[in-house]
Amino acid sequence: MRELEERIKNDGQVLGEDVLKVDNFLNHQVDPQLMYHMGEEFHRLFQDKKITKILTVESSGIAPAVMAGLIFQVPVVFARKHKSLTLKNDLYTAKVYSFTKKVSNEISISKKFLSSDDHVLIIDDFLANGQAVQGLMEIIDAADATLEGVGIVIEKTFQKGRQLLDENGVEVQSLARIKAFENGQVVFVDEDQD
Amino acid sequence: MRELEERIKNDGQVLGEDVLKVDNFLNHQVDPQLMYHMGEEFHRLFQDKKITKILTVESSGIAPAVMAGLIFQVPVVFARKHKSLTLKNDLYTAKVYSFTKKVSNEISISKKFLSSDDHVLIIDDFLANGQAVQGLMEIIDAADATLEGVGIVIEKTFQKGRQLLDENGVEVQSLARIKAFENGQVVFVDEDQD
Repeated sequence: MRELEERIKNDGQVLGEDVLKVDNFLNHQVDPQLMYHMGEEFHRLFQDKKITKILTVESSGIAPAVMAGLIFQVPVVFARKHKSLTLKNDLYTAKVYSFTKKVSNEISISKKFLSSDDHVLIIDDFLANGQAVQGLMEIIDAADATLEGVGIVIEKTFQKGRQLLDENGVEVQSLARIKAFENGQVVFVDEDQD
Repeated sequence: MRELEERIKNDGQVLGEDVLKVDNFLNHQVDPQLMYHMGEEFHRLFQDKKITKILTVESSGIAPAVMAGLIFQVPVVFARKHKSLTLKNDLYTAKVYSFTKKVSNEISISKKFLSSDDHVLIIDDFLANGQAVQGLMEIIDAADATLEGVGIVIEKTFQKGRQLLDENGVEVQSLARIKAFENGQVVFVDEDQD
């Protein structure tokens, strides 16, 4: 998605080997117009699927997910992050390990918001090692719901998340695909073709 | 706002003396269409103000805030919640006490996303004791920005938040104003006039 790639080039900040900071339009400050255009793009990419619900994880997934939900006209459920829970009877939970922060968190979704009738589109801000998406997939399995696809804002193709999802036969569509950071600059997958 | 009041009547759940659970359309599962209509209503209520930025707090404030931002065509910044931070140089921070959870959290906003040129609209999901809004107001003060008003989805008029903001001369507009819970039912401020 050209608008997003340009925004990443202009406003993204490469930190070290593999971190891209996009807190000025996605992770802390949010550009609602860009989020809306991303929602339209997710709809274009998954319009042949019968989506009944969008799942994401708080907090950075919420803005792109609700814009997609607006266009798909379906409810959005955001999984909550916890250190770990004692009361779990009414919840689907999954463990999510963060390689960046080196901590394990639990994510949870109330059982009443996901059923076996649901056809789910997962939306998330980043795909790196795929841990968050995998946690949501465990929850979808536990609810006996159907995963229709995964929509990612920014994918880092050099980390193992994509491969993991491909191996599970999951359709993944990413709005921006980064293949490398070179000299502090972002290189997109399709950039050679320009 | 009639659509919101009806949704609260139909889907809200009164717990104990003073808690309203709206996790099926606002706090966990989100209805994007309703969020969009709320964004339109916030725009109608504050259209005479020159708003340059919308501020909210993660996570439940994000959905209504980004929809308002879409219609105002301004960036949205969501304050992050932490237990407490060591590195604070680049951040505005404020303490927020939660009466429900009986814990104190810190909220923070990167200094680069709020300046003295900004005219800010605060959007939040609930106004009860006003602690979150007060924290955001401290941050706006620290940045020497201008607070133009506060837009609330659900206000509980019987708690002290509204009075606190009135005393500070802040314009507050709430889309639903609850004056009491009676026998497990919600009673709105304007209900006698129906």
